[in-house]
Amino acid sequence: MKKSGHYGENELRERLSNISGLNETAMQAARARQARLAKPPRSLGRLEDISIQLAGISGSVINEIRKKRLIVLCADNGVVREGVASAPQSVTKAQTINLTRGVTGAGALCAHFGAELQVVDVGVAEDIDCREVINRKLAYGTGNIAVEPAMSRETALLAIKVGMELSECAKRESVDIIGVGEMGIGNTTTSAAVLRALTGLPAEKLVGRGGGIDDKGFMRKIGIVSSCVQRLEVDCADVIDVISKVGGLDIAAMCGVFLGAALCRLPVVIDGLISAAAALCAYRLCPEARDFMIPSHQSCEQGYAAAMRELRLSPMLSLDMRLGEGSGCPIAFELVSAACAVMSGMASFEGAGIDDGYLDEIRRNDSYTDGGAK
Amino acid sequence: MKKSGHYGENELRERLSNISGLNETAMQAARARQARLAKPPRSLGRLEDISIQLAGISGSVINEIRKKRLIVLCADNGVVREGVASAPQSVTKAQTINLTRGVTGAGALCAHFGAELQVVDVGVAEDIDCREVINRKLAYGTGNIAVEPAMSRETALLAIKVGMELSECAKRESVDIIGVGEMGIGNTTTSAAVLRALTGLPAEKLVGRGGGIDDKGFMRKIGIVSSCVQRLEVDCADVIDVISKVGGLDIAAMCGVFLGAALCRLPVVIDGLISAAAALCAYRLCPEARDFMIPSHQSCEQGYAAAMRELRLSPMLSLDMRLGEGSGCPIAFELVSAACAVMSGMASFEGAGIDDGYLDEIRRNDSYTDGGAK
Repeated sequence: MKKSGHYGENELRERLSNISGLNETAMQAARARQARLAKPPRSLGRLEDISIQLAGISGSVINEIRKKRLIVLCADNGVVREGVASAPQSVTKAQTINLTRGVTGAGALCAHFGAELQVVDVGVAEDIDCREVINRKLAYGTGNIAVEPAMSRETALLAIKVGMELSECAKRESVDIIGVGEMGIGNTTTSAAVLRALTGLPAEKLVGRGGGIDDKGFMRKIGIVSSCVQRLEVDCADVIDVISKVGGLDIAAMCGVFLGAALCRLPVVIDGLISAAAALCAYRLCPEARDFMIPSHQSCEQGYAAAMRELRLSPMLSLDMRLGEGSGCPIAFELVSAACAVMSGMASFEGAGIDDGYLDEIRRNDSYTDGGAK
Repeated sequence: MKKSGHYGENELRERLSNISGLNETAMQAARARQARLAKPPRSLGRLEDISIQLAGISGSVINEIRKKRLIVLCADNGVVREGVASAPQSVTKAQTINLTRGVTGAGALCAHFGAELQVVDVGVAEDIDCREVINRKLAYGTGNIAVEPAMSRETALLAIKVGMELSECAKRESVDIIGVGEMGIGNTTTSAAVLRALTGLPAEKLVGRGGGIDDKGFMRKIGIVSSCVQRLEVDCADVIDVISKVGGLDIAAMCGVFLGAALCRLPVVIDGLISAAAALCAYRLCPEARDFMIPSHQSCEQGYAAAMRELRLSPMLSLDMRLGEGSGCPIAFELVSAACAVMSGMASFEGAGIDDGYLDEIRRNDSYTDGGAK
């Protein structure tokens, strides 16, 4: 944030300065416990990493995932006027409502795994008459990034604030883990544009087919992502400028959810491309925010891999999914809860009646000891 | 099975001839239902594939995973006398008993996810005085494959039969999905030897560190895997000869579980290296057996990848796990149940109130329609 003086900007900067990273003491204790569990050191791989990361987040070695919440940010994107999406804009509103009924992909998965689903309108192009959708609408869609900024700097800051408040609300309501998803036709284009600005990679390395666009639409999408950053004179070092000029209200609010999770020390799961782009925005605004992030699945969208490389994270699930809606999160919640179960449910060598030679032998293999979170 | 005349060999051949592949009619109906669900076609990737595969297995479009069972085959391997394992042989017995108490890695995961854990002794080197361990012991460990065959052809056939009976028992007891794990110090060496015979790849491409062996042990392991197939004059085209000369009782029985699953039409999850080697044995004995297999996680052991390539399967989870015990299976069961939830819980376009234009538009994108199981 180079520029300042806008409403909320100083407040945001001050709040982010309060974010501290993982609790090293708790992580050391967690590593020590993992090393005593009855298995070859590090043989449970990323389940061990997650259990250690959770210790660093909560400050306790033993953690449990009881209450899980997927937060889905819904907004429309003016760039759909360029014909970059396979579905009409009206699908955003329809699926926003359907999400609350548990009949979309993410809805069915949340219902199955017992995760709460919180659906938030931050910028759908039409009014939504549905009690279950939380109304935090900041605009009726955004500007068309092919020709104009998506939103003002003030609006971007307000959207980030909305996201942060959603994380704080989750913490207040004793949620143990959150996931960040979205619904917004056109948002694979805005996400690729944000990644173009933040990574400097060419559009060809960032743009995918989204919901399933044809060749002509795909070429238009690449053209817009290629040109919009320069055309709108985006200051690529200024994340708020990036989000406000070529992002979207969903991305801005999702970025806020990641920042809010770090602020109130909640583990937060990244879904696919859009979620990863928002996570990268949060990381660039506050590097410690990354400590609270847990990746889920390898999205088919190539921009996802670019965002993960910048975040130095890698996904745990290879399911060839590209639905969005946060659909990877309820599945990843189960992996995180499995990590907790290993930490709390496994016996130590001392308790397992295993020949001490076993413990000594595997302890001698230095190359297989230690690891660390992430 | 080129040779014949041994006890059980004709019976096995006859039983395998009764295995038929997936039900194409049910799979077509499942694909048609997936295409009507309110999402871009194929956007749930492998969850869709699994739902279609399950339809092909059960004959019904809608399936549910209620009762899950991990079957863990436990046996000792004479090759540990060569110093190829990081843990002493006594760990096999200790962990076999610990598995029944839910305190090992796989035990903790099964307990957490509500999966049954069936622990079977097919060849542990010592007697096991524990009611919860099913006694199907065929020998007190195997011969040392560095110098002698692991077992006789008759014993290998008996172990396969034990495995098949375990699958039939699961089917009788209304289990909806099974997983195949193992406990047996030294079995990454025997698995690599089996893969050496079945794939023709050099030992260097198949041998890993197992539980965490040091450099000297690692070189010994490579040497044994390199030489044993030729030294014992293994007929690499004869799977029973491969298993009996350079395999193990766990691998033989696990191969039987895969074959039995195909015979009684149960979906069966592959765990790591040893499970994958046994799955490849089953596939070579009866190619249709592959139709019933579902891979779980990418094992760190490099032989795993070789087995998956031969099976033309790829794992869904990247967790850097290398524990064995079937520990990937209870996690994969959740992915399979997620696939069922999507198929049964999602609304169709007709029911979701989505603008017909959406459906028409994405239907026009031929490159994004269809897919098929696996």
